[in-house]
Amino acid sequence: MVGIIMGSISDIKVMQEAADVCKQFGVAYEIDIVSAHRTPLKMVDYANTARERGIKVIIAGAGGAAHLPGMVASITTLPVIGVPVKSSNSIDGWDSVLSILQMPSGVPVATVALNGAKNAGILAIQMLGIENQEIATKLQNYKAELSEKVAEMVTELKGNK
Amino acid sequence: MVGIIMGSISDIKVMQEAADVCKQFGVAYEIDIVSAHRTPLKMVDYANTARERGIKVIIAGAGGAAHLPGMVASITTLPVIGVPVKSSNSIDGWDSVLSILQMPSGVPVATVALNGAKNAGILAIQMLGIENQEIATKLQNYKAELSEKVAEMVTELKGNK
Amino acid sequence: MVGIIMGSISDIKVMQEAADVCKQFGVAYEIDIVSAHRTPLKMVDYANTARERGIKVIIAGAGGAAHLPGMVASITTLPVIGVPVKSSNSIDGWDSVLSILQMPSGVPVATVALNGAKNAGILAIQMLGIENQEIATKLQNYKAELSEKVAEMVTELKGNK
Amino acid sequence: MVGIIMGSISDIKVMQEAADVCKQFGVAYEIDIVSAHRTPLKMVDYANTARERGIKVIIAGAGGAAHLPGMVASITTLPVIGVPVKSSNSIDGWDSVLSILQMPSGVPVATVALNGAKNAGILAIQMLGIENQEIATKLQNYKAELSEKVAEMVTELKGNK
Amino acid sequence: MVGIIMGSISDIKVMQEAADVCKQFGVAYEIDIVSAHRTPLKMVDYANTARERGIKVIIAGAGGAAHLPGMVASITTLPVIGVPVKSSNSIDGWDSVLSILQMPSGVPVATVALNGAKNAGILAIQMLGIENQEIATKLQNYKAELSEKVAEMVTELKGNK
Amino acid sequence: MVGIIMGSISDIKVMQEAADVCKQFGVAYEIDIVSAHRTPLKMVDYANTARERGIKVIIAGAGGAAHLPGMVASITTLPVIGVPVKSSNSIDGWDSVLSILQMPSGVPVATVALNGAKNAGILAIQMLGIENQEIATKLQNYKAELSEKVAEMVTELKGNK
Amino acid sequence: MVGIIMGSISDIKVMQEAADVCKQFGVAYEIDIVSAHRTPLKMVDYANTARERGIKVIIAGAGGAAHLPGMVASITTLPVIGVPVKSSNSIDGWDSVLSILQMPSGVPVATVALNGAKNAGILAIQMLGIENQEIATKLQNYKAELSEKVAEMVTELKGNK
Amino acid sequence: MVGIIMGSISDIKVMQEAADVCKQFGVAYEIDIVSAHRTPLKMVDYANTARERGIKVIIAGAGGAAHLPGMVASITTLPVIGVPVKSSNSIDGWDSVLSILQMPSGVPVATVALNGAKNAGILAIQMLGIENQEIATKLQNYKAELSEKVAEMVTELKGNK
Repeated sequence: MVGIIMGSISDIKVMQEAADVCKQFGVAYEIDIVSAHRTPLKMVDYANTARERGIKVIIAGAGGAAHLPGMVASITTLPVIGVPVKSSNSIDGWDSVLSILQMPSGVPVATVALNGAKNAGILAIQMLGIENQEIATKLQNYKAELSEKVAEMVTELKGNK
Repeated sequence: MVGIIMGSISDIKVMQEAADVCKQFGVAYEIDIVSAHRTPLKMVDYANTARERGIKVIIAGAGGAAHLPGMVASITTLPVIGVPVKSSNSIDGWDSVLSILQMPSGVPVATVALNGAKNAGILAIQMLGIENQEIATKLQNYKAELSEKVAEMVTELKGNK
Repeated sequence: MVGIIMGSISDIKVMQEAADVCKQFGVAYEIDIVSAHRTPLKMVDYANTARERGIKVIIAGAGGAAHLPGMVASITTLPVIGVPVKSSNSIDGWDSVLSILQMPSGVPVATVALNGAKNAGILAIQMLGIENQEIATKLQNYKAELSEKVAEMVTELKGNK
Repeated sequence: MVGIIMGSISDIKVMQEAADVCKQFGVAYEIDIVSAHRTPLKMVDYANTARERGIKVIIAGAGGAAHLPGMVASITTLPVIGVPVKSSNSIDGWDSVLSILQMPSGVPVATVALNGAKNAGILAIQMLGIENQEIATKLQNYKAELSEKVAEMVTELKGNK
Repeated sequence: MVGIIMGSISDIKVMQEAADVCKQFGVAYEIDIVSAHRTPLKMVDYANTARERGIKVIIAGAGGAAHLPGMVASITTLPVIGVPVKSSNSIDGWDSVLSILQMPSGVPVATVALNGAKNAGILAIQMLGIENQEIATKLQNYKAELSEKVAEMVTELKGNK
Repeated sequence: MVGIIMGSISDIKVMQEAADVCKQFGVAYEIDIVSAHRTPLKMVDYANTARERGIKVIIAGAGGAAHLPGMVASITTLPVIGVPVKSSNSIDGWDSVLSILQMPSGVPVATVALNGAKNAGILAIQMLGIENQEIATKLQNYKAELSEKVAEMVTELKGNK
Repeated sequence: MVGIIMGSISDIKVMQEAADVCKQFGVAYEIDIVSAHRTPLKMVDYANTARERGIKVIIAGAGGAAHLPGMVASITTLPVIGVPVKSSNSIDGWDSVLSILQMPSGVPVATVALNGAKNAGILAIQMLGIENQEIATKLQNYKAELSEKVAEMVTELKGNK
Repeated sequence: MVGIIMGSISDIKVMQEAADVCKQFGVAYEIDIVSAHRTPLKMVDYANTARERGIKVIIAGAGGAAHLPGMVASITTLPVIGVPVKSSNSIDGWDSVLSILQMPSGVPVATVALNGAKNAGILAIQMLGIENQEIATKLQNYKAELSEKVAEMVTELKGNK
């Protein structure tokens, strides 16, 4: 199961894409709101119990001074994927990106692009597919689809001219 | 008492200045190393018990994805002063600054300049001096000293020419 | 009393949040417009007389080359909280942030996030609550409310799915 | 097996830390130099055959316009961890960070901090430990060691005073 | 013939200007969609066969972690002009600019301004005009037109007043 | 007379160049240390009396949150030239540059390059030379010297080969 | 006479403010479009003849890679005020600001804030007022008006509450 | 012939690499110092006569507010390659990069990486090799050498372990 968490319900418009990827690949997931700054103890508890509750990868999205992914990673031994969310009053997203990416030695967060929840989902699937041939095959098919979409774009482009 | 904490002993070369200011103003302080990412539970405990242990202001320094000041602020009701430390592998200090400064609504951190531990100390003294006339007088004298040092610089400048 | 000042009436849409927090916590405040660049002498006077007029914390908001918080801090011994306001023609807010944050040794400004007037208000309340148990209790309750709002968000999120 | 690749032998001083982590955790690894821009066909081949050669996670480090992690990720279905290396003539590391982090939808790279090869190693171990209890236990012990090192730092700090 | 490629059909609104310049100067061109990350093998093939298919200059546009121009340049010996496209979720265009511009020694990309596809077209024409007097004359005329447009602007400006 | 001021004696190593230019052009100048944050009232007095004391242009250098040039400009009607000084703990000079450059409407500061005290001196001379033919001629000669130095460089370059 | 020039008619919406200030202070001005890149020879001619045609200060606005102010300054001995214009496709205005501000030693440009044409106008007036008491008085009055406007804002603010 | 110019003799330590590439590929070149700001008329003349003097590509390096490449491009119809040089007092190289890269529509500069003079040389060779099979073959060999150097690095890496 993939655990998807975010600091505020306003992040769901970005983070939903991570859930959609799980659905698309047939991988169970749960979504929750866990705020590092407003529910610090729930966060500690979430991270502490994640593995025993069957979560295998955690995707955490947050904006501004985004401490959720790093703090969860400080507690759990599961891989944590961080999604920098470009919130209102963000300084162009730099705050979210840097406060998720620049973790100190010993406590990594697997950071994806600004608002890159879709890629966070795919990365989680890739982790689950390391030794799972079925998922690996689905990922291979997904790559083929990406390539086919480009072929369709080419058709559209040529038709447009 | 002022509580001065930092994420690593390597931060002491910056953070010592905060302690020195406390000493200079005759205000008690304690220094500790509390790492958001390596000792998250100690951090929670530190923040939870700070007020009852007699701490009145917390000064927290950290570098990179600097979560310590914000996480402590999420737990305590005391004012927290954050000192962005320019660590090695920092991206020019931007990471420390933004991950301390850009806190979400509801959980402020009083951020000072990059490596500005001295100012963190003075700010703590100012907070303690809000209703303490003795400290306020010391602060007034401190301002006079700053001004006198400029006068000495002028003498030095004129002498140099 | 909390003194809330700003450089222009256009800043009120941001700075009102600081006043609202004071109201919410039952703390007296006064709002004024004091421009470092257009009314420098009023600013000097404001800062010089703030303590004797009963002001305990000053919240100063300004945009662009934002000199108001730092200049007020250069004169008063009260703690000064700076709110970087993202004005039109600002370079993404960097100018406001850096000209408030990067104060030289000896003259701190407690800087909050870009447009973070609400947090400036809470920080002021925290300073007043250092030795005031009633305010401390209100701050504790406020933290509980923040946490409850997250619980409501979770309900909303689960309901939405 | 963890596959560790880098664009140039000059990157080894950073990337060696990823290998050291693998050694420390008793996980097999191989190191190779694969340059996106100087050996593009070797890179394609490396990525194409990685899974069948028994590689489970790829760690790719590169500096400047760092295309190696993203290009490898475009070909393999394995998770790819990208290490932005701060090379000479880099613009403060921003080029490496952004050209690894900001991958388009569909092709994630798990990005770690600038020069964060050690964390890349730990992240790889975490991925391998998702369903491997032995590794998970080692990671738990590693966290305990991190915490103990902080305790030693505290002793050192108190002793120094 | 000028080869114009881009990573996605959404880039055509920027890249069309490069094609328009070719048309305007009477130089043959072909447009295609070639994605470094979604069609890596097509990209390798495109770059490998470009010269033999009669392409003389390649213009490649891409956004975010923009690897297309640099990867094509790693394979072909033709000059490659890179157009940083400001895509959605870009961090203000810095990601596209830096991941195209900061190529390592040995593999240059001729980078133009953000969204500067028109200039990419002109630059391609300039390359073709190095030893072609007819094109050189057209370029000279083009410069005269630029100058004349300024003269028209002056007339408009004076008339407006 | 040109008034040259700076916030600290440590700025003299940069600001001396402004004085040297005055000397070179035979224009009177005075140097003083006036700190916006440590001697705010001296600053107000300096700015208030500058014109009557015979100062015609003010050159003000400062680093970090550099308020001196803008604050002086808020009081005097003389033109103020601001020199952003790259101080220690500066964030790469951005703080000095932005807090001098981004002045609000109504109160300009003529900003020169980071550490550009020499250019500040020349700009002051240019202002004095607007209606002074003798200075204008010296400026013309200075331009000729700049050009001659390039010619000498060419000789050196050709000789070196 | 103040000479106001800009690179394109699209800059007039910003640069008109400089002209308006001249009008307001009763100082003659002329506006022209002079493009460094599209009319380089007109630019050389403009700069070469400016002083003899009675121009006393040049205000030059430009966006992107903004070479007009610096190139004009390289030719004339008059003071040149540069206005960075935030054009479309600008990288947040940084390109305009840096390519105007960071002039090499020997050739200053008096740079004002992004889109700060109004301040450019006032700065030009200040230069003309160095030895002109009438203009100096007007500038003093202008400062009084700025202060009065703040007083009006205070009335409005108090009324609003 | 390739024309290599730079704004100051101090740039030769960077720009020599462009000359070395020409030598290596057996392509004639000339080096000169042409300063946009100190020898503007020489610059105009250089650009005006470049094509007739047999120059086919111009490589121009400059630092800070780097106007040389763009201004030369505004006059000649030859392709101009711009090399941003990281000079002292540069703001981390951003000024050079942006003032060369962000040219307006109609006047492109083929920009290479910060201090990327070697790549400027290779890009010039690629332009000359568009229709010259001998040069194209040399470029193909050069790519093979790049690849071989990576192979040697691999040997060194394996030997080191």
